[in-house]
Amino acid sequence: MMDKQAMKQAILSAKKSKSLRWDQIAQEIGMAPVWTATCCLGEASATQEIAQKLTAVLDLGDDVADALMECPTKGEWLARSIPNDPMLYRFYEILSVFGPGIKDCVQEEFGDGIMSAIDFTVDVEREENPKGDRVKIVMNGKFLPYMRW
Amino acid sequence: MMDKQAMKQAILSAKKSKSLRWDQIAQEIGMAPVWTATCCLGEASATQEIAQKLTAVLDLGDDVADALMECPTKGEWLARSIPNDPMLYRFYEILSVFGPGIKDCVQEEFGDGIMSAIDFTVDVEREENPKGDRVKIVMNGKFLPYMRW
Amino acid sequence: MMDKQAMKQAILSAKKSKSLRWDQIAQEIGMAPVWTATCCLGEASATQEIAQKLTAVLDLGDDVADALMECPTKGEWLARSIPNDPMLYRFYEILSVFGPGIKDCVQEEFGDGIMSAIDFTVDVEREENPKGDRVKIVMNGKFLPYMRW
Amino acid sequence: MMDKQAMKQAILSAKKSKSLRWDQIAQEIGMAPVWTATCCLGEASATQEIAQKLTAVLDLGDDVADALMECPTKGEWLARSIPNDPMLYRFYEILSVFGPGIKDCVQEEFGDGIMSAIDFTVDVEREENPKGDRVKIVMNGKFLPYMRW
Amino acid sequence: MMDKQAMKQAILSAKKSKSLRWDQIAQEIGMAPVWTATCCLGEASATQEIAQKLTAVLDLGDDVADALMECPTKGEWLARSIPNDPMLYRFYEILSVFGPGIKDCVQEEFGDGIMSAIDFTVDVEREENPKGDRVKIVMNGKFLPYMRW
Amino acid sequence: MMDKQAMKQAILSAKKSKSLRWDQIAQEIGMAPVWTATCCLGEASATQEIAQKLTAVLDLGDDVADALMECPTKGEWLARSIPNDPMLYRFYEILSVFGPGIKDCVQEEFGDGIMSAIDFTVDVEREENPKGDRVKIVMNGKFLPYMRW
Amino acid sequence: MMDKQAMKQAILSAKKSKSLRWDQIAQEIGMAPVWTATCCLGEASATQEIAQKLTAVLDLGDDVADALMECPTKGEWLARSIPNDPMLYRFYEILSVFGPGIKDCVQEEFGDGIMSAIDFTVDVEREENPKGDRVKIVMNGKFLPYMRW
Amino acid sequence: MMDKQAMKQAILSAKKSKSLRWDQIAQEIGMAPVWTATCCLGEASATQEIAQKLTAVLDLGDDVADALMECPTKGEWLARSIPNDPMLYRFYEILSVFGPGIKDCVQEEFGDGIMSAIDFTVDVEREENPKGDRVKIVMNGKFLPYMRW
Amino acid sequence: MMDKQAMKQAILSAKKSKSLRWDQIAQEIGMAPVWTATCCLGEASATQEIAQKLTAVLDLGDDVADALMECPTKGEWLARSIPNDPMLYRFYEILSVFGPGIKDCVQEEFGDGIMSAIDFTVDVEREENPKGDRVKIVMNGKFLPYMRW
Amino acid sequence: MMDKQAMKQAILSAKKSKSLRWDQIAQEIGMAPVWTATCCLGEASATQEIAQKLTAVLDLGDDVADALMECPTKGEWLARSIPNDPMLYRFYEILSVFGPGIKDCVQEEFGDGIMSAIDFTVDVEREENPKGDRVKIVMNGKFLPYMRW
Repeated sequence: MMDKQAMKQAILSAKKSKSLRWDQIAQEIGMAPVWTATCCLGEASATQEIAQKLTAVLDLGDDVADALMECPTKGEWLARSIPNDPMLYRFYEILSVFGPGIKDCVQEEFGDGIMSAIDFTVDVEREENPKGDRVKIVMNGKFLPYMRW
Repeated sequence: MMDKQAMKQAILSAKKSKSLRWDQIAQEIGMAPVWTATCCLGEASATQEIAQKLTAVLDLGDDVADALMECPTKGEWLARSIPNDPMLYRFYEILSVFGPGIKDCVQEEFGDGIMSAIDFTVDVEREENPKGDRVKIVMNGKFLPYMRW
Repeated sequence: MMDKQAMKQAILSAKKSKSLRWDQIAQEIGMAPVWTATCCLGEASATQEIAQKLTAVLDLGDDVADALMECPTKGEWLARSIPNDPMLYRFYEILSVFGPGIKDCVQEEFGDGIMSAIDFTVDVEREENPKGDRVKIVMNGKFLPYMRW
Repeated sequence: MMDKQAMKQAILSAKKSKSLRWDQIAQEIGMAPVWTATCCLGEASATQEIAQKLTAVLDLGDDVADALMECPTKGEWLARSIPNDPMLYRFYEILSVFGPGIKDCVQEEFGDGIMSAIDFTVDVEREENPKGDRVKIVMNGKFLPYMRW
Repeated sequence: MMDKQAMKQAILSAKKSKSLRWDQIAQEIGMAPVWTATCCLGEASATQEIAQKLTAVLDLGDDVADALMECPTKGEWLARSIPNDPMLYRFYEILSVFGPGIKDCVQEEFGDGIMSAIDFTVDVEREENPKGDRVKIVMNGKFLPYMRW
Repeated sequence: MMDKQAMKQAILSAKKSKSLRWDQIAQEIGMAPVWTATCCLGEASATQEIAQKLTAVLDLGDDVADALMECPTKGEWLARSIPNDPMLYRFYEILSVFGPGIKDCVQEEFGDGIMSAIDFTVDVEREENPKGDRVKIVMNGKFLPYMRW
Repeated sequence: MMDKQAMKQAILSAKKSKSLRWDQIAQEIGMAPVWTATCCLGEASATQEIAQKLTAVLDLGDDVADALMECPTKGEWLARSIPNDPMLYRFYEILSVFGPGIKDCVQEEFGDGIMSAIDFTVDVEREENPKGDRVKIVMNGKFLPYMRW
Repeated sequence: MMDKQAMKQAILSAKKSKSLRWDQIAQEIGMAPVWTATCCLGEASATQEIAQKLTAVLDLGDDVADALMECPTKGEWLARSIPNDPMLYRFYEILSVFGPGIKDCVQEEFGDGIMSAIDFTVDVEREENPKGDRVKIVMNGKFLPYMRW
Repeated sequence: MMDKQAMKQAILSAKKSKSLRWDQIAQEIGMAPVWTATCCLGEASATQEIAQKLTAVLDLGDDVADALMECPTKGEWLARSIPNDPMLYRFYEILSVFGPGIKDCVQEEFGDGIMSAIDFTVDVEREENPKGDRVKIVMNGKFLPYMRW
Repeated sequence: MMDKQAMKQAILSAKKSKSLRWDQIAQEIGMAPVWTATCCLGEASATQEIAQKLTAVLDLGDDVADALMECPTKGEWLARSIPNDPMLYRFYEILSVFGPGIKDCVQEEFGDGIMSAIDFTVDVEREENPKGDRVKIVMNGKFLPYMRW
């Protein structure tokens, strides 16, 4: 029984030897790049159909497909509360600086509740800009109002 | 000399007594709602022009305007490494689950570097949806490539 | 502008001087006891109608009603990651010992996703038992399946 | 001498190759699904009778039965104070938001003491609902009053 | 409404001005010294009868008696996970060095379960010894076996 | 050179294959059960005489005897500040709830100083009780007064 | 009833207005400078005789003398596990770098046990040196051998 | 290329098989015992001359000599902020209780600055005493005054 | 007796009312701007001469001068191990990413030891650059070789 | 597929067997020593050209060159929030003591924003000095002003 860690290594090796990028793999299987990367890194689970497409694209076996379909225990890569890697840290910094402002704007518009991180998508785009291209990240989550019972 | 904490209380009181939302204040001063809230909560600094507009809208004095222009020590509200409030926690959860996938997609496209959280904007929108409206958050930061020297 | 901390003190004083229990207050306002206590302790927000009923029951003013309607920053009472109070700690212990088993049973039945803690109710009951009465806690949250996009 | 970690891997492999769910195994051995999963994951200990039934159902040997009967050091999977996995985190969030309200309601009814997490059961059910099925978790623990001596 | 912190200060002042020790107060009210100290320090709750005796001994008012009867949120004095005070730290050290041996001896004798810290007493005695007197601490807690359901 | 970890595994395997309990081994070597377990788990060191008796009882070699005699680096099993295992956690809870009361009672009797955790013994007994047997833990440590110089 | 914090402030003010150093005060009362400072900063307790001498030297009242005689809860100034102040941090660094070597040398000489930090003195001296004077710190603690019982 | 961990194991094995103590090895190479132990445990680096003497005394090869000469990353053995081992913990306790008094005495004598932990020696001695021998630890570090520029 | 916190507030108010920058104050007193700011923020101590110049420039009294001359307990502003403010965090990030490379380069050049942070200066300059001006920070600390004794 | 850890080991072995210093390797490839060390230690990524030069200098294969070109997850060596190694710790201490002063001086000169740690270089030099040579570290990062939008 292959675990998520071994699955990830197998996928990264195949991806490298085939010189594929996540967005190319994503296009082959009809999914979004961030989701595809997330699933292959072991932080999301695939349906049987997606798992078969993915292993077909990467020439990998059924053990990888099975592992892709397992529900992962998510977030275990984050060994410390605050990530050190600068690219990952910036999301923590955004939360530190802009979190309270975002919370207020969302809750003034929608009432007491949250943006779901489950019924949720996130996409990454390049925005061309003469002063230096920009990364555009679009998060989209269902608003969930708090029940009062 | 008014500090950011007192400034924030003064602004929140004035805002409440005038029944204004952040997006209404933002429109009055010609800025975005999330930035306006962030600045009034003490996590960003205003130019003199913005500070004067803000205090005019809220009928507040020069001490508030002065405090709005100070460079804040940011992120001090986050007393613990991981925020407990569910709306704020979701950003931490997004980092936990989707962080590695986002990092990989950004760096495959742009090379080794980061999305700036300084040369950066973030906006919040309501997306209507028959199954329940959704929160759309758009982050937009300049890509900064690592120097090699 | 009364904050949640002052609101909580005002409510607890009024509740004590009137010798009311949370379940009695809850019955007066037509809500559940745990939700009523949670809202009065500042961890949930009331609708205007509930806020008015609550302040009527407790003979408290509009400032309390206003504070009850504010969206709180939740969970700030938990100053340390792990609560020391034995009654509160037991929930942490249940997570430590039974968390993985519950996760597996839920996800085998429902697939990859979570039990919502927002679209969620929790109730407490006394279960009589000759060997010593028992506390029955019923949690009920909508299952949210992870999106694949 | 097989340790709990090896025991868990042996059980998970056998379970997977036989395509069994925890509730099916539980029914075979006459126990509840959450308890069965908890014990097989190494967070509870079995009686000799249960250990034999479990290994019979899964075609596993005496070393697994012996390991199932050992008293575990519980909770070691929780490497950080706060779990990152979203399904597991929700229990921490419930404690953060609803813990104080639950504590107050329990102690107003029962006096100073706790709900036991040892003389305790927890069960999971699916509650059908046209707006989306719900997870119902029923915890049931003996109330233990504090001694005064 | 007097809180536990104010109650504790009132009791400590009265105790000092009357030059009473905990064991003297304990004898007056017919309880054990450690419990009496624990209750007066705000980590346990008194019955009405005990609260009245305690306030009579110390010439304190009904507000103190009321506060003594409240269920406390326990353990909040322990601001850091590990206490720095050497006398208090020794209990942590005993857990570090002897905890695993005690656990094994208890569970070999009683099976899988715990010594209750609720249905529990702890007493302190002086043991005379020519090489230097010794502190004897006797803990006595009901064994609680884990349920299997 | 066998380290404490390998020594512990060798002892636990031999103990299991001989179906011995700690109290039986302790009786054979003329020591107390908790000390015997503590030493075999690697948290204490044996004299040569005890080491030889222990390895004789368990049919183990000189490498185990040598390892038993080494001074251990103690407490390394406690990977987190607060132990998760419920039996071990109860000692932390006792410190949280009763620590200040114990400290006060000890210091009122003995003056400023501590109960030694080095010149110290701890024993475990079963106390029969019709309402459920109880665990009695007796700690006995020399009182050490603080020097004033 | 004056607490240790107020006592410390009173002493530091008196000391400053009299332009006294700790070693001068120490000489007046016949104690060592480090102990005198430690006691006045609230981390040790005085006998009645010392307390009276100290308050006589500093022209302070009986409330200060009483507070000096109380058993303190020690180490509370150390709000974080690791002190930031460079002079204080160096002791932590010495533990990090030289701790294991010191432990081995002590235990090879004395056997399994510790240097007491209670039956303990510490003194500071200036050592003149043409390349720059040196701080000499002499710690002296009774060796306490571990009991085996 | 042998790393410090392997070097340490090789040295400890050779030391044990030759029945040498650190002070004996130190005498052979003309260095102090604590420094010798610190270097062999991987927390200090040797000159070529010392490395050759050390490996000659212990009959070890050039790979060990090379590893002894490497600059270590120091303090990595201290996996948690606060060490659990009682002998090592006492240094932390000394810092907690006596740190502020030592700091004040040093800075009153020398001005604002620190005792160096680099231009620093530490030695351990046995002090005979009829009430029980004592451990004497002498630290000696250059005083470094803070620059003002 | 004015403490460092009150001193800092007095200085910041005077500085603001006089519209002075740190570099202007520094020039008046003949010191560097970073040192001047550090001292006024309470993280360094002044000589009497500097203290008098500083208070003369700012029209402040002797209590401020006295407080400037006290040895501070440094680093207490850093309430969490990792600073949240983005400008301050970047120094932590530089340590995370470049720390090991800097350490290797320094120690290959100088041998085993450290760059002093006490016998140390740090200056800030603006470097003009057509692509955006740059911050140049020059740190200069004496190399301290580890003693071998 | 070689990971950064294996790459680092391969490079350090080759570097040692060729007796090369980082500054010598740096000169061969036309880059700065700190960057070269940082890249070889796995905290930065190389271009293809640099990777080929580096592996040519060190006689290493294409797998090492490939690994050098990967974007690393940076900062993972820093297992604890605060580094214990004294050379590395000094950067943390500089942040603790001088951070606020530097921040103020930078922001008075440049306005609200940060010194980039990405568009950033850091160099190390020896500064000869008759009282002991000094380490000079020059950091140079682009100033990034906060956007207001």
